[in-house]
Amino acid sequence: MRDTVAALGLALSTAGVVFPSPDPARVREQVRAWRQAHEASILREFAGLLAVPNLASDAPNIRRNAERIVAMVEQRGLSARLLDGQGGPPPVYGELRVPGAVRTVLVYAHYDGQPVDPTAWASPPWTPVLREGPFQEGGREVSLDALPSAVPGEWRLYARSAGDDKAPIVGVLAAVDALKAAGLAPTVNLKLFFEGEEEAGSPHMAAVLDASRDALRADLWLICDGPVHQSRRMQVFFGARGETDVEVTVYGPARALHSGHYGNWAPNPALRLARLVAGLRDEDGRILVPGFYDDVRPATDAERQAAAAAPDVEAALRREVALAATEAGGARLAERILLPALNVRGLESGHVGAAAVNAIPTEAHASIDIRLVPDQTPATVREKVESHLRAQGYTVVHDAPDLEARRTQPRIVRLVWGAGYPAARTAMDLPVSRALVRALEAGLGAPVVRLPTLGGSVPMYLFQQKTGRPVIGLPIANHDDNQHAANENLRLQNLWDGIEAYAAVLTGLGPGWHAGPD
Amino acid sequence: MRDTVAALGLALSTAGVVFPSPDPARVREQVRAWRQAHEASILREFAGLLAVPNLASDAPNIRRNAERIVAMVEQRGLSARLLDGQGGPPPVYGELRVPGAVRTVLVYAHYDGQPVDPTAWASPPWTPVLREGPFQEGGREVSLDALPSAVPGEWRLYARSAGDDKAPIVGVLAAVDALKAAGLAPTVNLKLFFEGEEEAGSPHMAAVLDASRDALRADLWLICDGPVHQSRRMQVFFGARGETDVEVTVYGPARALHSGHYGNWAPNPALRLARLVAGLRDEDGRILVPGFYDDVRPATDAERQAAAAAPDVEAALRREVALAATEAGGARLAERILLPALNVRGLESGHVGAAAVNAIPTEAHASIDIRLVPDQTPATVREKVESHLRAQGYTVVHDAPDLEARRTQPRIVRLVWGAGYPAARTAMDLPVSRALVRALEAGLGAPVVRLPTLGGSVPMYLFQQKTGRPVIGLPIANHDDNQHAANENLRLQNLWDGIEAYAAVLTGLGPGWHAGPD
Repeated sequence: MRDTVAALGLALSTAGVVFPSPDPARVREQVRAWRQAHEASILREFAGLLAVPNLASDAPNIRRNAERIVAMVEQRGLSARLLDGQGGPPPVYGELRVPGAVRTVLVYAHYDGQPVDPTAWASPPWTPVLREGPFQEGGREVSLDALPSAVPGEWRLYARSAGDDKAPIVGVLAAVDALKAAGLAPTVNLKLFFEGEEEAGSPHMAAVLDASRDALRADLWLICDGPVHQSRRMQVFFGARGETDVEVTVYGPARALHSGHYGNWAPNPALRLARLVAGLRDEDGRILVPGFYDDVRPATDAERQAAAAAPDVEAALRREVALAATEAGGARLAERILLPALNVRGLESGHVGAAAVNAIPTEAHASIDIRLVPDQTPATVREKVESHLRAQGYTVVHDAPDLEARRTQPRIVRLVWGAGYPAARTAMDLPVSRALVRALEAGLGAPVVRLPTLGGSVPMYLFQQKTGRPVIGLPIANHDDNQHAANENLRLQNLWDGIEAYAAVLTGLGPGWHAGPD
Repeated sequence: MRDTVAALGLALSTAGVVFPSPDPARVREQVRAWRQAHEASILREFAGLLAVPNLASDAPNIRRNAERIVAMVEQRGLSARLLDGQGGPPPVYGELRVPGAVRTVLVYAHYDGQPVDPTAWASPPWTPVLREGPFQEGGREVSLDALPSAVPGEWRLYARSAGDDKAPIVGVLAAVDALKAAGLAPTVNLKLFFEGEEEAGSPHMAAVLDASRDALRADLWLICDGPVHQSRRMQVFFGARGETDVEVTVYGPARALHSGHYGNWAPNPALRLARLVAGLRDEDGRILVPGFYDDVRPATDAERQAAAAAPDVEAALRREVALAATEAGGARLAERILLPALNVRGLESGHVGAAAVNAIPTEAHASIDIRLVPDQTPATVREKVESHLRAQGYTVVHDAPDLEARRTQPRIVRLVWGAGYPAARTAMDLPVSRALVRALEAGLGAPVVRLPTLGGSVPMYLFQQKTGRPVIGLPIANHDDNQHAANENLRLQNLWDGIEAYAAVLTGLGPGWHAGPD
């Protein structure tokens, strides 16, 4: 085994303990064989978990989920318990101590799901249904009690949270089962941390991290949430953009005035809002707020190279969503999301179309979300935007101005900011970052996509800030899983691949991740 | 009487016929005395007319209105009949030929009214109710069958079309009654022309004007519609701005994309629309479309002077609608409406406020109305706006683009134009214009406000273009009559003043209006 381990750069630990990783190809082979022999039971366990309604706000059911997962973890011989949710649903904690292992990997997932509109679903959201392919392509329903001996990878299991985010829970437990059955010991300790209110915005997570600091101590946090790459290749992401948002209101006359009698006498708030918004960014995405980029940490060479190497999904996506061109001269998507972004998510003033009336509107509204990158913070961004508007002569207020204020201040803008949170990014050239990618690629026998950051926002910063440990994303769901929407589903091959990925991490990440040659 | 006539500048006709106008003060006195003795019957006749529902689309009732008015006109000894409505409600035509008169004044009004929302009315819209003052100030209801001998001018009659626009019909007939009772002969022929679908956009008016050309021949058209000045002074308006409007749509991705994953890669249509709109005009109302002002006929000295002399209503209005400042450095309202105006009447894209989602919208919409002045036309304005957008790289289309078009053309803007119509303006220094003002001022014993143009749009151009005759507006309703809204009303003093104004026109406008010294 030593040859292989050396070839992977995961040789001796600095502590001097010889701790060889098993041969990745053999691990894959054995894990796959075990899975192929147990597909029916894996899917039935999965379906059982999916059958429990899982809205974070549904206290009895969300607790049933938590208790069921504790039982599933314990069934594997791991210790498991509920943590104090600090007022929210109880997180599930599990632990596998490996004799001789000196490093600990924590796998994070969440067991709660997005709200559902049952009328939009082809089958009830908490009645798992297996289909021979995507529902909208006519995939026929297959009974979970009459499965063939080999279940095709293109079949899909439909239910709320099939992809987001119960699949990793089932996947990592199956990986533990498979390794155990093959007599392959993990080379790292494993901790499991499954949250119950991620889709509700994780309002109690900071308190949970503080209160359970000791239990949650780990050397690497793996965030198992989100989808794999659109090319269906496994991916890891080393960061996520932060987010803040603001509702903008500017004011016109206190009652709508006839646009003929008073047009070009009374100020028009819709026009003023258009000018305000147009002054925030150009059509290539460059944000025009002075100093906006001051806090932007430049991308590293490793990040730029990884972004450039990301598979090209743009051409297909452009065709799908009918875009003749993209911003910034067609720059790569993975490169664009290394930068902050300002998105106008809504405009509203007066009426358009058949409802339009010849009046000067009383107010005009814009809703804007801003994606942040390191080292921006919601507070610094807010300050810069407000200064920018003040420099244009605006009086910035945060509450609705009364009529007397509108009579005395000619340019009032009301800004209502969401809380927001900062970006997070783990350096791609840390030894642990490189070791993780190597372990996955060796274990899967295929290259993985390395994304310096997600374009979207997940609160990775919270784990990073509270624990000070590297946080890296390892999702397994298919990108076309209808996450957050009706008919959410998991493509089975993604679960099969996910099991092998978890096994690769558990056996391929030795204690030597700090010592391997880079 | 000659002295008075000479003082009014309405001396000998060019035809050499001596045709003295009666003394204006005496006319006023006699008309007022007659009115004071007949207030109850005037109001009961008015209420009877207001009790007939008058939506242009309600064919049986709109015809009942027309027939009732024909009867009212005939009752005064005038000839009257229905004209062919050319597919619309029949216009009412009436005629009073005056022996010796060589000029003919046509009084236009309309007997149809705006649609109603009965739930918003304090009393049913077609059940006229007299109140001792404005409803919202607690004005108590008074029975029309138990009126005092003198009805206070501040009382108000509530019903749909009380102000807009049945009051002039009742007023001009009362003026004829009063002159007849006093033995005062008009000095001009009178024609009456009452339309039945003005609030529906006068779709058949052009055809009516063509078909009834001979009947409608007149030397002066008086448009008796709209309100008097906000200062409650009687006013005449010599023009109206024209109008055109356009619905603007720009396009983003064909389905909403996640603003995190795709923000600053996929073009944002809301941002693009904001920039497009911001490029149409500045915050002082200056329209930035190249060549937009090329066709604007400069205001004459007379128009500028009249605008400057208009009573100041701005300070009170600014306070009422809570505006700290107005456009163009606080320039006078009457001066501003001499110019074209571009009003953003609506913006809509994505969602704002509680409904906001972190997505790049698929489309963004603006609704814009443009007020025109002589000699602009909807066609020239449309051409200039489209050229302006093309110069910014937009592909201008008029139908919704299909996906293939969106895949190949990076900047598509869809423009859907309303029909629109041009402005009209009658020169204020025409002899007839001056004569009308003099007749009114002498007859009323008070100065009148002379507006070079209304800011709003009424199709005066149609009368002007089709007849080639001077068209001047002489409204009598109060400006606070809730025109087009619930609880429409007429302040009685406006009707009393209107009767005197019509009498002043009928007796003060001699055949000499072309010959008087200017």
